[in-house]
Amino acid sequence: MQNITLKVEGMSCNHCVNAVEGAVGKLGASAKVNLAGKSVAVEYDETKVSAAAIKEAIEDQGYDVVGE
Amino acid sequence: MQNITLKVEGMSCNHCVNAVEGAVGKLGASAKVNLAGKSVAVEYDETKVSAAAIKEAIEDQGYDVVGE
Repeated sequence: MQNITLKVEGMSCNHCVNAVEGAVGKLGASAKVNLAGKSVAVEYDETKVSAAAIKEAIEDQGYDVVGE
Repeated sequence: MQNITLKVEGMSCNHCVNAVEGAVGKLGASAKVNLAGKSVAVEYDETKVSAAAIKEAIEDQGYDVVGE
């Protein structure tokens, strides 16, 4: 398993937490949002999903992945 | 039809807009959220739903109605 922590702008409330964690979860990865820290800790199986796909899923929810 | 504008704290994003407008809509009233203005303009039929019920529906979504 691989772990990355992404810096994500625009998450403001628990709806956002659910949107991001849900979108990453659909990829078979596990995400934990830190709202105050503007970050998303992700654990994923790099043989099944790429970090790029995870970032894209978060962007697709309307947030900006600004770094790792 | 009756119109009120409520001051509501805690709405931060479009998910919040949808939550509030949806909850008020379920009562048969019509709500328009102004995120930046922290307000919700509501049009409702006072013979069918009360202002108190509308405020409660918004509070039930996790927001504070702090005034009219």
